[in-house]
Amino acid sequence: MRAPTRSVELTQVTEWEDGSVRSLQDSLAAEEPLEIRVDGGPLTVTMRTPGHDLELTAGFLLSEGIIESADQVAGLRQPPMNSNGGSNVVEVELKDASFDSRNLQRNFFTASSCGICGKASIDAIRRRGLRHPNRDFRIGPELLCGLPAALRSEQAVFDRTGGLHAAALFDGNGDLMAIREDIGRHNAVDKIVGWALRGGHLPLDRHILLVSGRGGFEIVQKALAAGIPVLASVSAPSGLAVKLSQELGLTLIGFLRGRRFVVYAGEFRCLPAATVRSSSPPLATL
Amino acid sequence: MRAPTRSVELTQVTEWEDGSVRSLQDSLAAEEPLEIRVDGGPLTVTMRTPGHDLELTAGFLLSEGIIESADQVAGLRQPPMNSNGGSNVVEVELKDASFDSRNLQRNFFTASSCGICGKASIDAIRRRGLRHPNRDFRIGPELLCGLPAALRSEQAVFDRTGGLHAAALFDGNGDLMAIREDIGRHNAVDKIVGWALRGGHLPLDRHILLVSGRGGFEIVQKALAAGIPVLASVSAPSGLAVKLSQELGLTLIGFLRGRRFVVYAGEFRCLPAATVRSSSPPLATL
Repeated sequence: MRAPTRSVELTQVTEWEDGSVRSLQDSLAAEEPLEIRVDGGPLTVTMRTPGHDLELTAGFLLSEGIIESADQVAGLRQPPMNSNGGSNVVEVELKDASFDSRNLQRNFFTASSCGICGKASIDAIRRRGLRHPNRDFRIGPELLCGLPAALRSEQAVFDRTGGLHAAALFDGNGDLMAIREDIGRHNAVDKIVGWALRGGHLPLDRHILLVSGRGGFEIVQKALAAGIPVLASVSAPSGLAVKLSQELGLTLIGFLRGRRFVVYAGEFRCLPAATVRSSSPPLATL
Repeated sequence: MRAPTRSVELTQVTEWEDGSVRSLQDSLAAEEPLEIRVDGGPLTVTMRTPGHDLELTAGFLLSEGIIESADQVAGLRQPPMNSNGGSNVVEVELKDASFDSRNLQRNFFTASSCGICGKASIDAIRRRGLRHPNRDFRIGPELLCGLPAALRSEQAVFDRTGGLHAAALFDGNGDLMAIREDIGRHNAVDKIVGWALRGGHLPLDRHILLVSGRGGFEIVQKALAAGIPVLASVSAPSGLAVKLSQELGLTLIGFLRGRRFVVYAGEFRCLPAATVRSSSPPLATL
């Protein structure tokens, strides 16, 4: 069993609340790719929170129908590997399973609901050429705070079913350009990006993307692919989403609710540097 | 653009609230597989809410790095096919894209965050042999209502980060057996199933699985693979999740909050038939 500390990462964030700005330390859910190998060949790569990786692998094999009982797993091990003291690979040895890794590879495809995790190589995740978004784009906190209400008032299906994720694209004035809903968070974002691509609106370099769910690594990747400089969410981002945003200069905003939000990366676009006052972490009050 | 009505499905449900039971009509988010084909070969299958499928495809191609501009799409079409008046296939013709569908198929794998959608053939989704869960298992409404609080009190990471999904397994007495958290909803469920598999607890035929997120088709599939008879969620299920649960006799519960829940399938396990009184749909009050 992995140490629980690997599931949580600490980061320095900036909170805006009703005009007051403070710097504080926040906890983020860790997100790292896990590659599952079966009988020496790659089976899948999934983005997951580290911990209980052998259970995750065993459960995946059973729930995907690759095995039917524990007897069919001859070996299950996680070679110690990476610099964090953990490993992002699990190796499985099967027996008495009607499993042909060559067939499986042909029959298992990625899905837009996972995005980045559909890569054979873990290393490839960080090497993809993503655009650095427009550094000259600026938006004010008051404009940001108005976006969730605009999204909700336009949501066509969510209010009726309670089961859809929404993604909404706003221009620099806070005007809603497009909204899409889907059972899959990543599909809603892909529909927005596809709308822009087909309509000749790319790159979306003076735009804000608001998503109703969590801001994960793959949502950040999709925003960057469309050239979007500001990604906002009503919920929490993952640790990997924050790292990628910091590295590529995306403004990443979480917990955008009422008159409060938290900036995880690229605060220069929405909070003038002069107004940020540091407080002692964690959770200090001005 | 697809007609918006395809995004929503109506179903008859049973609501329990503080001891009162009524039958009413509810709206569900539609969930169907979409297969994206590129230059005649299969690229991916994703579970999505029908509508804006060409946008979804275009956005997926761009955000996954298969194309970089609209010029590289020579054709994009959706052949009319299925009995619902819609189509679950989009065909793409690329030009000037450094794309080899054979390489792509080898490099794109499924992810546990999508589960069921990692299949090459849409037809295969419905054909997999899943167990019918234990028909003799019963639980009372009061026991159900206590489960979310038990999950919350045990959640190790969620309170700190706000960014994790949780899955919890309870026995027939409502006692918590295991809880797992992950950035991916489906990973949390796979970790529970893998815990049971490795510990010799399968099938989980007298157990309840509670998930913090939405109850999608693939979560239902994973529950059935472990033999679980009752799946509960604090949020809404998808239309396809309800259909699969009804077909295979799983008890599917949504909106489990406070002293209220909605039963979408298999109500015989938690609501004695005698207490159910029909009301005229939609949303009639007793």
